[in-house]
Amino acid sequence: MFDIIALDADDTLWDNESYYINAKEAFVDLLLAFDPDADRVKHHLDEIEEGNVAIYGYGIKSFLLSMVEAAIAISQGAIRGDDMRAVINLGREMLTSPVRIFPHTEETLGILAQKWRLMLITKGDVFEQSQKIERTGLAKYFRMVEIVGEKTPAVYRELLKRHNIDARRFLMVGNSLRSDIQPVLALGGQAVYIPFLNTWVHEHRVDGELSKDGYYELESLEELPELLERIAKISI
Amino acid sequence: MFDIIALDADDTLWDNESYYINAKEAFVDLLLAFDPDADRVKHHLDEIEEGNVAIYGYGIKSFLLSMVEAAIAISQGAIRGDDMRAVINLGREMLTSPVRIFPHTEETLGILAQKWRLMLITKGDVFEQSQKIERTGLAKYFRMVEIVGEKTPAVYRELLKRHNIDARRFLMVGNSLRSDIQPVLALGGQAVYIPFLNTWVHEHRVDGELSKDGYYELESLEELPELLERIAKISI
Repeated sequence: MFDIIALDADDTLWDNESYYINAKEAFVDLLLAFDPDADRVKHHLDEIEEGNVAIYGYGIKSFLLSMVEAAIAISQGAIRGDDMRAVINLGREMLTSPVRIFPHTEETLGILAQKWRLMLITKGDVFEQSQKIERTGLAKYFRMVEIVGEKTPAVYRELLKRHNIDARRFLMVGNSLRSDIQPVLALGGQAVYIPFLNTWVHEHRVDGELSKDGYYELESLEELPELLERIAKISI
Repeated sequence: MFDIIALDADDTLWDNESYYINAKEAFVDLLLAFDPDADRVKHHLDEIEEGNVAIYGYGIKSFLLSMVEAAIAISQGAIRGDDMRAVINLGREMLTSPVRIFPHTEETLGILAQKWRLMLITKGDVFEQSQKIERTGLAKYFRMVEIVGEKTPAVYRELLKRHNIDARRFLMVGNSLRSDIQPVLALGGQAVYIPFLNTWVHEHRVDGELSKDGYYELESLEELPELLERIAKISI
């Protein structure tokens, strides 16, 4: 039925967005001296972050640079190096924090890996993501690990081609409609959406309608093995 | 004789280090107000950059974060946001500058691609490098493009395994003894060193002696097709 079950990593296998949320809160606290309106500070940072995706890409370093830029903008150039050091430290802490793997992730991967060939597909900085994957110790469940710059249909197409995978026999699992679900459905693959409370708003943005063919939704990764069994049965 | 001829990109196919050199000069100029000793400023930045490789990895964003940190350190926290904005702009310019492909690169790749299966192996940020490769238009000469976080023997080993390549039938070409030459020789592969005037000192650092088996040195990429012909002839 499926040649490959591919899984997203950040906010699908382990917590990611909450590190950003916490850093943003700390950032707002640091900047209150320059602008007492916390919402406005946060909005300003969000805007700069979103605008910088095209030049910096994804990942913690990009986010850290956006915080530095936002600190300059919000303080109208008045922020001093001492405060900037505190901003830098927010990013450095994110880079070195232990990864909080979700409960059941490892158990579920163990069950899945017995039956399916698993692929990890994560976007972001290859250095950051490689280190993170290594620190989780979860690489052993995956036949292939792919770190990509963006998760567009073109990137998935190239990836499937390179590994000689038929899109119809490819299923992707993740928490982002924009990155994990829509592009895969667009190529004729199947996709399992597992919403996550903390998903970055950027990842919800999809152009056009979601195709409903081959689309599934689950509450938790734990339910994935059973869903795959069900799909496999139906298609016999 | 060879299944794959792999080439490094930065400072092998196109100019890279000179962007860093120019940015460092501009950085020193910006910081002279806080420390009039240009050499000391440069040295301080170099030290921070080298120390940050382990946490930030390679690439322009990492370098930019090192400049921000160095600006704080050199000014002893006194630098203001306005000056920091100028530092940020140095990095943003690097990210958006056109890539200066070396003369003969494209012609040589055209000759090589007629006879050999070419692979591009570059380290750094996947987002930055993907964009750069796209902007050069040189991707069409390569069967495979690999962007890795580090160029260690373990990374090359994994790469060869994944593509089912025998190390003895693998030849790597690049300007870095540390990243392109030594790890490949260590695995039993062959390597062509093309020194480049501007190579970052970090890339010259090798542990232990270079094995001389399978080691070649050229002055220019232009000479590569002829060298490969010669090696192929000898081994018949």
